[in-house]
Formats: sequence, C-alpha cells, structure tokens
Amino acid sequence: MDNTIKQHIDKHLDRYLEELFTLLRIPSISSKEEHKGDMYKAAEQWKYLLKMAGCDSAKIYETDGNPVVFGEKIIDPALPTVLVYGHMDVMPVEPLNLWDSAPFEPVIQHGKIWGRGADDDKGQSFMHAKAFEYLAHSDQLKRNVKFILEGEEEIGSPNLPKFIDEHKELLAADIILVSDTSMLDAKTPSLTTGLRGLSYWQIEVTGPNVDLHSGLFGGAVANPINELCKIIAQLQDDKGRLTVPGFYDDVTETTQEERDLIAQIPFDEEAYKKAIDVKALKGEEGFSTLERTGTRPSFDVCGIWGGYMGEGAKTVLPSKAYAKLSTRLVAGQNNEKIAQMMVEHINSIAPEYIKVKVEPMHGGQAYECPLDLPEYQAAEKAYMDVFDKRPLPVKRGGSIPIIAAFEEKLGIKTILMGFGLEEDAIHSPNESFPIDMFKKGIETIIRFYGHLDE
Amino acid sequence: MDNTIKQHIDKHLDRYLEELFTLLRIPSISSKEEHKGDMYKAAEQWKYLLKMAGCDSAKIYETDGNPVVFGEKIIDPALPTVLVYGHMDVMPVEPLNLWDSAPFEPVIQHGKIWGRGADDDKGQSFMHAKAFEYLAHSDQLKRNVKFILEGEEEIGSPNLPKFIDEHKELLAADIILVSDTSMLDAKTPSLTTGLRGLSYWQIEVTGPNVDLHSGLFGGAVANPINELCKIIAQLQDDKGRLTVPGFYDDVTETTQEERDLIAQIPFDEEAYKKAIDVKALKGEEGFSTLERTGTRPSFDVCGIWGGYMGEGAKTVLPSKAYAKLSTRLVAGQNNEKIAQMMVEHINSIAPEYIKVKVEPMHGGQAYECPLDLPEYQAAEKAYMDVFDKRPLPVKRGGSIPIIAAFEEKLGIKTILMGFGLEEDAIHSPNESFPIDMFKKGIETIIRFYGHLDE
Repeated sequence: MDNTIKQHIDKHLDRYLEELFTLLRIPSISSKEEHKGDMYKAAEQWKYLLKMAGCDSAKIYETDGNPVVFGEKIIDPALPTVLVYGHMDVMPVEPLNLWDSAPFEPVIQHGKIWGRGADDDKGQSFMHAKAFEYLAHSDQLKRNVKFILEGEEEIGSPNLPKFIDEHKELLAADIILVSDTSMLDAKTPSLTTGLRGLSYWQIEVTGPNVDLHSGLFGGAVANPINELCKIIAQLQDDKGRLTVPGFYDDVTETTQEERDLIAQIPFDEEAYKKAIDVKALKGEEGFSTLERTGTRPSFDVCGIWGGYMGEGAKTVLPSKAYAKLSTRLVAGQNNEKIAQMMVEHINSIAPEYIKVKVEPMHGGQAYECPLDLPEYQAAEKAYMDVFDKRPLPVKRGGSIPIIAAFEEKLGIKTILMGFGLEEDAIHSPNESFPIDMFKKGIETIIRFYGHLDE
Repeated sequence: MDNTIKQHIDKHLDRYLEELFTLLRIPSISSKEEHKGDMYKAAEQWKYLLKMAGCDSAKIYETDGNPVVFGEKIIDPALPTVLVYGHMDVMPVEPLNLWDSAPFEPVIQHGKIWGRGADDDKGQSFMHAKAFEYLAHSDQLKRNVKFILEGEEEIGSPNLPKFIDEHKELLAADIILVSDTSMLDAKTPSLTTGLRGLSYWQIEVTGPNVDLHSGLFGGAVANPINELCKIIAQLQDDKGRLTVPGFYDDVTETTQEERDLIAQIPFDEEAYKKAIDVKALKGEEGFSTLERTGTRPSFDVCGIWGGYMGEGAKTVLPSKAYAKLSTRLVAGQNNEKIAQMMVEHINSIAPEYIKVKVEPMHGGQAYECPLDLPEYQAAEKAYMDVFDKRPLPVKRGGSIPIIAAFEEKLGIKTILMGFGLEEDAIHSPNESFPIDMFKKGIETIIRFYGHLDE
C-alpha cells in the first residue's frame, strides 16, 4: 500500500490539530440560548477552514435558528457530486465537576484529544475538510464536493429541513457523506447502515398551585412527583415494552437473516457490562443487546426534577414535577405519529386530581442504507485499505434525524463513515477522540474518493 | 372583658414588630451549612430578647450542631414551672423567583408580616417572649417560666435529644408551651392535640457508572430514573396505602367516637380544593380529608432529580437518580422501626441491574395531648376570652418530633397553642403571618397564665 497519504497526514498533523483546537475552543452549545454568539464564531471558523481547504466559495446562511455554513468546489458540473454533512454544535457539558480537564480547553493526553466535540462532531467533521484539502491541493478530485455544516444537530435540527427545502439546487448531489457515528472498536471497522429515529417530550405535572407543607397536607392532596413516577412507571411493562397503544404497530420487524447477521458482530457482553459497571443488562425481552439498541425502540427518561433538591431534608409537598422523556424509534415508525400518540396516551392515563402537560420537543425518522449502493462499496474498500478488515454493516441506536430528512427531501442516500469509539464518551463528561483514529479517518476518507468509479 | 392587655399590646406593637423584624432578617436556614453563622446571630438576638423581657438569666449553649438558647425567671422554686419551646431556624427559601418580596427582608403589607419565619416559628415563638414580658414587668407572674429555643427544628432536631438528656434539671417543668401549629381559621380557634411523626429518607439509584448516550445504549441498559420511578410507584397501591409489609401493623386505629368528633370540625372541602387549585383530592380510601391528614400515615416524595434538567432536549441515559422520600406517622408507629422497614423493603424490591442506596435522614414520633389536662383547660379558656369561641381539639398532620422527645425524656406534656393560619404558607414562598393573629396570640398567652390555678 502506497504510504504517500499517511506521510502527508503525519507531516501536517500538528497544523491539523491546531486548526481543530481553534474549533473545539468555541463553546457552541446549541441547546443554550446564551451560546448563540458562539455558534456564529464556529460558523466563521468553518467558513475559513473550507476556503483554506480548497472550496471555490464558502458562505454563512442565516436560518430562523443557528447559521448554516455551505462551501463547494465544482470541478465539472457534469461530474457527480459528493455532499459532506457535519455539525458545528455540541452537547451541554454538565455535570462540570466530572470533567478532568475543562471541556472547552482541548488538551492532548494519552494519545487522545480531550474536550467537548473532540469526536461529536467537530473532530469527525473536521477530518473531511482535511481529506478534501489533500485531494483539492493535489488535483486528485474526481467529484464535485459540497460541504454543509449546521448548528442545531444536538437539538434535533429544527431549522435545517426548511433550509433544505429552500436550497435544493445548492445542495443537489449524488451521495451524502457523514462522519458522526462510531466503529465497533478501534480494530473492528464498521459502517453504520441503520440509525434509530427519536421522539422527545417534556412532561409537566402540577398538583397544588403552591408548594405545600407535607405534614399538613400529606395524605390528602396528590403529590405531583408521586404521580409523575406512577405515569412513567406505567409507560413500560415488565417485559421492557412500551405500553402506549399502537406504539409497535409500524415497527419493521427484523428478519431471521438480519438477526443472524447481527449475531456475527463481535460483542463481549461481559466487557460491555464492566465498562459501564452494571451487574446485569436490562431491555426488551426476547432480543439481544445489539438487537435492542439497533433494531428495537427504547424508552428513556433523560431528566427528572421537582420539589426540594438541596442539602438536607425539606418536608414539602411540591406544586410541580417535570421529566424529559425520549423514545428511540426504528424503521417503519413515524416520529410525528409517535409524538402525538404519546401526548394522547399520557393525557388519557393522567388522573383528574393532577394537571398534566406533555409537549413534544423534537424528533426524527429512522434511516437505513442498502449494502449494494456503489458508494457504500467504495467506503468498504477504503476501510479495508486502512484497517485491513472488511467493515461490518451495523445498525446503531443513535439518531441523526437530518439523515432521514435528506433522503425524504433531496432523495439522496447517506454513507455513515463513522470513526468514533464507544469510549469517546460523546454527550458525557471527558469526551475524547484518539489521534490514531483521527489520522486513519482522514486517510479512509481520501481513499474513499479514490475508490469511486472503480 | 378587661381591655388593659389589648391596649398594652396596641401601645407597644410598633416596638414588638421592630424587634421581630430584627429576628426575621437573620437567614437562619438550618439545612444549609453556609448559614451556620446566622444561627449564632439568631441565638444572640434571642438571648437579648429574653433578658429584655424579664429573664433573670439567658445563655447560649453549644451542641454538636446549632446552638440552643435557654433563659429563665424563677419567682419561687416551690411554684410550678412553664417551659416555653420554640425554634430559631427556618426552612430553605427556594424557589426564590416565586417570592413577591425578599424572604429575609420582612415587610408589612395588607395587614400581614411577610418573610421567611414570619409564622414558622420566629413570629409565633416571639409572641411568648412578649406575653412573658408583659407579665414579668407588671409583676403578675404566677409561674416560674423557662424558655428554650433551638436551631435545628426544621432538620429534625438532631442534637436536642442529647441536650435534653444532659440538662434535665435545667429543663425541669410541669408543662411545655409551644406555638408552632395553626388554627382551623382566623375565626375558628383550635388547639392541636395530635401531631404526626415523620420518617424521611434519601434514595440514590445508580445505573451505568457514567452518563451514557441514550441512543447508543437506550434499550439495553437500565435507566436509573425509569427504575427510581418504578420503585416509587410500587411503594403505594391503588387505594393510597403504603405497600411496605408491616407498615400499618402498629397504627392506632381511630375509634368511631373520634371519627365522629373529627366530622364535627368545620371543613369546606370546596374551599380547600380551590385554595390549592386542584380539581379533586386524593388520599387513602375510606377516610375523610381531616382523617387522612390527622390520623393516617402518608407518603410523599419531597424531591426528585436526575439526568438533564436544563433548557432544551439532551438525549442522555443518566448514571444516577435521586429522591427524598417521607412518610408521616401516627400514634403507635415507631419512627426508627419504620425507617429500617423502608430501607429493607426498597432494597428487597430493587432489581439486580441497578444499585440502590437508601439512607434514613431524620424522623420523630407522633404525639397526643389529653383533653382533661388542667393546662389544656386553661388554654381553652384563654382562647375563649380572645376569640369568643371554645377552641376545637384537632389532630394535625405536621410533625414536631421534639414534642414526643420531651414527653419521653422529661415526662412533660405539651400544650400546642398554635396561632398560624393555613394561608400563612409556611415552608413555601411568600410566608406570612397576620398582625391581628400576632396581637391575639400575645393576648391569649397572657390570659393562659391567668387561667392557671383556677
């Protein structure tokens, strides 16, 4: 195998990291209004990076929310076009006390980049800029290349669908490339061929109109926390299935063939349990762990709060209790239908002695990529070049709602070339990304372009 | 009726309020370590108030926690002694945004004193100092009087039992007077003849050892919030009864006679519901609202938290979830036995795929006062003088754990001469105390001393 690409990456690595760190230092948390300005800083930085990498033009587009950056290099309008998608925004960083280094002061330690966004998705999307830069600067591009970077992926891309609708010409392409997923492990390359959808709600339960003394009123007035817990407990049965009527009606059931394929994916359940320190796993009865996360819907309370949360023992019967509920959806399920279903179901089981408000917050469809797509096969070859193994097709539990929207609105399939690792702790404290994966990722992307048209 | 007392109170009212406000301005929140210094400020102020009111001596005693203030006036060691108990500490003030005025900057508006502690218990205990002052300064005392003010009532008086054990001589008395309860309403005087006990725990549920991505892991790993909700939901059945085995074994069941008496207490359920804005009440099946709060145990989650509680939608499968659980107990139940029972029961129902830690935080016994006690009858007469109605004996749902401890350790019964009103919103934002009740309370206490020995 020719070492030119590897050597080029090694030679420019320090500069690459310096550029990436500039991006990582911007606290572009999309779920917090106070970071609105940071999103524009991230957009400016991306615009600069795209131009430097070889785009003919790069521009910041306003939306009703955070800005979108678009850049392109059209070498020949008659040639097919690759559209690279990534996101500039990151997740919140709480709880801060669990970080070993400041989330927005990236550092290199133990061969990894540490900081919020190191993997998801600043680190991963940045690799595409550097792969493109290599090809553009060495005149090896065989495709027109477009880049779109959005600033609202972590809050469900509320404004991107409209942007797509309004810029179909601009975004026209033959395939979309995204690096925002992970491999099975550092030595087991894989390509994500399925993503779960998402439906996310906030529920507010109101009991009395003010916090009451739990001694004077306790036993006579319904407590909104007790009642919220009862509602949540009712939403799942003993077999780990949602009890919402009709919830499973549209689920595409996995074929035996697919289940056999999933069973071939190397998976060490003991190591998995040990890594997260649990004695036992728990999920829907009758399915393996990989089936549960890849092919089955799930239900998680992402947050809950109400009453007295401070030090000591305050005896209060609170007025309000809240929870953030989410379900992951699979192929066949429509997230908007599910959102409405959940609102109606919770309202139907809410007792008369409390007030309940359920509001859908965001959602997205599940996605599936066919294995016979020429670009999928080019990606397979690229991974084989770099990792010396054929990548396994894997359905992952995470959601990238916009991937389904691209398919729906532009009619374009997406290749999910993820280079993240489970231990990267995306969405958690101490997010990291190994420098080795960073280098291999850039090389794999460069080789992907080389294998097109073969 | 002689108006001398009333006129005296009116004449000195401005000074009384000025002195009370000095006390209310001290943020003596016992559940927060940062207010430790404020507890000493409150103690110094009380020491000053007792001396000014006519105590021969007043002293601050150290404990392993917050200080205790003791003062006394012994007019004749051969005479019976009244021991007045009150507490200097107050509840936390969160949520601050719901207060219309700053909690520790008391103001008078609409005929009420507004501020944390205006009623519970600075306002109420202060009335005893002023009643005593009147009697001592006019040489009308017929009893020796002792005062004890503690600084940990709102956190369950953890150090007062030891203080009592070590100062039995000092505290020796024939009756204890406490104003830390409320009347049925401003025109329906009542004396509290029963108080519920309390048992309070914190529960911590741990799932994975770090927060996980709910997409990647959701459906395969137990979510500690979902599981905490299931545990809480399991602790009560459809009939509003605790499901903890043995929980009701020691409950003294109310006799039909008592139930008939309770049924005579004026109670407007529609007004009660309207005041707290609930469509329906909810409690243990087969009991009226007053029975539920006065004679039956109850179960309330006082606080719950876990996962992402911020703005927006973070998709996380959290590592931990917490709740503060409390039960109110009734005569017959032992709070320590119940505390242990709950710990064992929750541990027994906790599934293997999560870790659960249950810790008792505080507790206290229930209390009952017999209606034929001479001092209870003197109190009845005093209320009749001031409110023109015979006070009703009422069992209240609140807990003052130390009242049961006084009986156990010193063998002294307590008269609960409360002047609070339900709308005073103790433990809640916008705590208040009507000036009219403040004046009537002082007069009632003065007249109580007058009716002793009749």
